[in-house]
Amino acid sequence: MGHLPRTLELFYDVLSPYSWLSFEILCRYKNIWNVRLQLRPSFIAGIMKDSGNKPPALLPRKAKYMTNDIQLLGQHVQVPIQFPKDFFSVILEKGSLRAMRFLTAVNLEHPEMLEKVSRELWMRVWSRDEDIVEPQSILAAAEKAGLSAQQAQGLLEKVSTSQVKNQLKETTEAACKHGAFGLPVTVAHVDGQTHMLFGSDRMELLAYLLGEKWMGPVPPAVSARL
Amino acid sequence: MGHLPRTLELFYDVLSPYSWLSFEILCRYKNIWNVRLQLRPSFIAGIMKDSGNKPPALLPRKAKYMTNDIQLLGQHVQVPIQFPKDFFSVILEKGSLRAMRFLTAVNLEHPEMLEKVSRELWMRVWSRDEDIVEPQSILAAAEKAGLSAQQAQGLLEKVSTSQVKNQLKETTEAACKHGAFGLPVTVAHVDGQTHMLFGSDRMELLAYLLGEKWMGPVPPAVSARL
Repeated sequence: MGHLPRTLELFYDVLSPYSWLSFEILCRYKNIWNVRLQLRPSFIAGIMKDSGNKPPALLPRKAKYMTNDIQLLGQHVQVPIQFPKDFFSVILEKGSLRAMRFLTAVNLEHPEMLEKVSRELWMRVWSRDEDIVEPQSILAAAEKAGLSAQQAQGLLEKVSTSQVKNQLKETTEAACKHGAFGLPVTVAHVDGQTHMLFGSDRMELLAYLLGEKWMGPVPPAVSARL
Repeated sequence: MGHLPRTLELFYDVLSPYSWLSFEILCRYKNIWNVRLQLRPSFIAGIMKDSGNKPPALLPRKAKYMTNDIQLLGQHVQVPIQFPKDFFSVILEKGSLRAMRFLTAVNLEHPEMLEKVSRELWMRVWSRDEDIVEPQSILAAAEKAGLSAQQAQGLLEKVSTSQVKNQLKETTEAACKHGAFGLPVTVAHVDGQTHMLFGSDRMELLAYLLGEKWMGPVPPAVSARL
């Protein structure tokens, strides 16, 4: 009997640029490694509050470093990431509550579309410096991802239901129970053990834990397609 | 004309476990990549103070995560790293001022011994849970690294000179000028550009910036020796 596929849970928020990097790397590797990838839309502000952590960009030197770091990593990982001009307003004031509730609704109703809609929201906020707060912004991302206008509108209406609100809360709490103090968090279930990995820079360590080969953030099969 | 060797500066403190990981990886790669590695002993407490940053382990969830993270990375990177039992006393109370002044003196008088003495201090504090504050602890590390008892004693006497104190201060300030808010910091001088990389998890990105091949934290040539 061969290895059963191992499960990886990726807890993420589209407000987090490092989450985007992890997301793309794991989406590339899920068909290369013998893994089942569960995308888990979470609410980063809830995790910061629950853990007592503060956004790194509040420390001026970390903010400056992140600007360079994300630009370089974007080139290396081949993700078209760009810092929004008014970072503090986008990240700290506007936030992601409606966007993450929308992704939660997508996950409940059209889970097969979650990857694409998540990516389109990142493309808006972390590549083209576009809004992700207003209803029409979220609808635009959903339609670009391939949902019909009617489907997108239906999901948007679900955003204020207790089912969706509670589900996002539960997923965020699950991340916290795994020890999250920020995002992304990858939870790997391997041989009866659970490993929680923080950040986008533990993917080579993840390969080691899975006994799989790390071929860089852009594995050759993907590189050929890009 | 071939490429001139590029310079990498590694700013580190033996109190920082992630510095140890960077140190070993760069010591392994310095003869594989076309680089000149400058070891720059620094004082982490000075960097935290100057940047307004706080040690991550002060946040309980980060402390818990670090314990697992460092154990896993130690296995993956093949560095015999172990958390000291009384982490808070070792890291936050006892500190590293004398140890880093001693390494500064080693760098001034016997620069060829800096790598080995640094490693022996890490072996004490981050592998065998031994003291690095008392003079006899530092002498023991220096002798284990290959210095004579007389040389080690001579260096220890230099620790309180203004030359050594000022040099450590200058190196720490240089790290801060590069934007450091913690350690390790790797400063790469490549094609007239300067890149500051924070942490032990940017080594694959460093390879990318250098145009060199990343072969994991234990490149094959080293793996054969271990």
